[in-house]
Amino acid sequence: MRTLMISAIVATSVLGASLIDEAKSAGLKPIPANKTALEKLTSNPNNPTTSAKVELGKMLYFDPRLSKSGLISCNTCHNLALGGTDGMSAAIGHKWTSNPHGLSSPTVYNAVFYTQQFWDGRSPHLEDQAQGPIQAGPEMAAPKEFVTGVINSIPEYTALFQKAYGKDVKITFEKVADTIAVFERTLVTPARYDAFLNGNKKALTTAEQKGLKTFIDKGCTTCHNDIALGGTMQAFGVVAPYKYMSVGDFKGDKNGMVRVPTLRNITQSAPYFHNGQIATLSEAIKEMGRIQLGIDLTEDETASIETFLKSLEGKKPQVIYPMLPSSTAKTPKVDVVNN
Amino acid sequence: MRTLMISAIVATSVLGASLIDEAKSAGLKPIPANKTALEKLTSNPNNPTTSAKVELGKMLYFDPRLSKSGLISCNTCHNLALGGTDGMSAAIGHKWTSNPHGLSSPTVYNAVFYTQQFWDGRSPHLEDQAQGPIQAGPEMAAPKEFVTGVINSIPEYTALFQKAYGKDVKITFEKVADTIAVFERTLVTPARYDAFLNGNKKALTTAEQKGLKTFIDKGCTTCHNDIALGGTMQAFGVVAPYKYMSVGDFKGDKNGMVRVPTLRNITQSAPYFHNGQIATLSEAIKEMGRIQLGIDLTEDETASIETFLKSLEGKKPQVIYPMLPSSTAKTPKVDVVNN
Repeated sequence: MRTLMISAIVATSVLGASLIDEAKSAGLKPIPANKTALEKLTSNPNNPTTSAKVELGKMLYFDPRLSKSGLISCNTCHNLALGGTDGMSAAIGHKWTSNPHGLSSPTVYNAVFYTQQFWDGRSPHLEDQAQGPIQAGPEMAAPKEFVTGVINSIPEYTALFQKAYGKDVKITFEKVADTIAVFERTLVTPARYDAFLNGNKKALTTAEQKGLKTFIDKGCTTCHNDIALGGTMQAFGVVAPYKYMSVGDFKGDKNGMVRVPTLRNITQSAPYFHNGQIATLSEAIKEMGRIQLGIDLTEDETASIETFLKSLEGKKPQVIYPMLPSSTAKTPKVDVVNN
Repeated sequence: MRTLMISAIVATSVLGASLIDEAKSAGLKPIPANKTALEKLTSNPNNPTTSAKVELGKMLYFDPRLSKSGLISCNTCHNLALGGTDGMSAAIGHKWTSNPHGLSSPTVYNAVFYTQQFWDGRSPHLEDQAQGPIQAGPEMAAPKEFVTGVINSIPEYTALFQKAYGKDVKITFEKVADTIAVFERTLVTPARYDAFLNGNKKALTTAEQKGLKTFIDKGCTTCHNDIALGGTMQAFGVVAPYKYMSVGDFKGDKNGMVRVPTLRNITQSAPYFHNGQIATLSEAIKEMGRIQLGIDLTEDETASIETFLKSLEGKKPQVIYPMLPSSTAKTPKVDVVNN
């Protein structure tokens, strides 16, 4: 028994030391442990993060009155209680419309680390991204002037915009999206995995470290790399076509490239893939091996990778549920049935 | 100027002292300032409040997976960020169904003080009430066994039920509703008005005190009394028919009685009345005078009552947004489009 324990400890630390280097060589990067470094990394120089903006952005994120119906908020589909997504295969929006392309809502957690937003990567950052779903007909369906009409009809909101941006702020639709984005930039979830990459060799168990090694050795880091373990555009179905490609009409961007989803908190964002057709993580891992790497992962390899992926479950920021200011007589009326 | 100020102060304290007695004689009661007294008042002896139940109840309250679609939680229509309601004239539920009777979602805040739940008062307490909307076809549409299926498929949930009720707990649908009710029992919002009734004569301004006096003198306390300033069953349209009675088919209970809504946080729960047809508080006050008291309130009287009602805006309990446990392979699948 003692021999076994000692050999396990030795194995851990030996694996640990070289594995950190190996992971970094494979392009994996931790969320910085240093608060200032993290803030610098997640802040947009053109839209610097301040606590006034974060607090206001949180209110807007949770406010269903930004939708044409008054019923759907950013949080409806990117639910912070449910891993930053909705658990649906395809998103449901305004008047119960299913996403016309069969696309699943990606998690908002750690989306700040993506180099492209949306499944087809058409948006360069969260400020731009946040403008999309608010306006999209099958999502929140709110025209720009409707949104600014709501905000400008509520004196507490205009005061909070002034507090965040100065007394002369013009509350445009873009400013609303910018503010939501600042809140979203705070939604990062450091995990034990980050502590490991930041040098704490004991932060991952031996089994998790072995899983990480398998993950690297099999080539998963080709696409799932950098801080998000995802977030760039990559070819999809490199070796074989995706089993459920026929569900929905999404074919990627104009070059057939698809934005790689983050693997952080992947245990909390089933069902998987852009059209949410894969229910379990082990099936998703196998399918990725088959269509991207051209390999049939064994049950053991799959289980080992899954064990590693579970270590990516991070600590979510605490969110105090906002109390929103009341509508006024000037607030645009909603007619959820006919509108 | 000094004379004016002195006379204002004298007026306040004289009004204050006698007004508290007058308010109590009219049946108005404060939320107890004493924490133990409040807990005793809001706890159900058959379902005592504990912190483990409150925390679990909060999770269930916010969990959309208790609905057949996986998209609608208690909080969707009784949004704690929006005064405990949804701002809709008639509630919208499963598959975007409008409430078939044209009924508006009542606020959940201070509902614990009601003697009857639902607009027709058919339910005696929150434990019973919470069972309704979860199952109702146009609301969350979830059969009992679907709800228990979801909970029992998620090990973290079963562990939390064991923590709350003991190791041998049987997780029934009724137990789920009971737990949600325990959370709802904590949603009370003490206001400056309560401090006033509890003896702090300066807690309300002179204008607010005058408004309270008008409120009592005009007879509003006939129905809007006790702690909730509402919550009992009363005849509706006593003197004249409600202007918008034709909207929806709701006619009250079998005797035509309607549950009186609380006036606490009434500034935050527009649009008003059971079918949400009245947009502003001043119009609601006038309509009440006309149909219940047979009087045409002047602009001054209406404004004075409105000033008082604004003082009923209470302090909401802080809610830390829950992080919900992940679904598992055993969790019943949802098909939002076809189901």
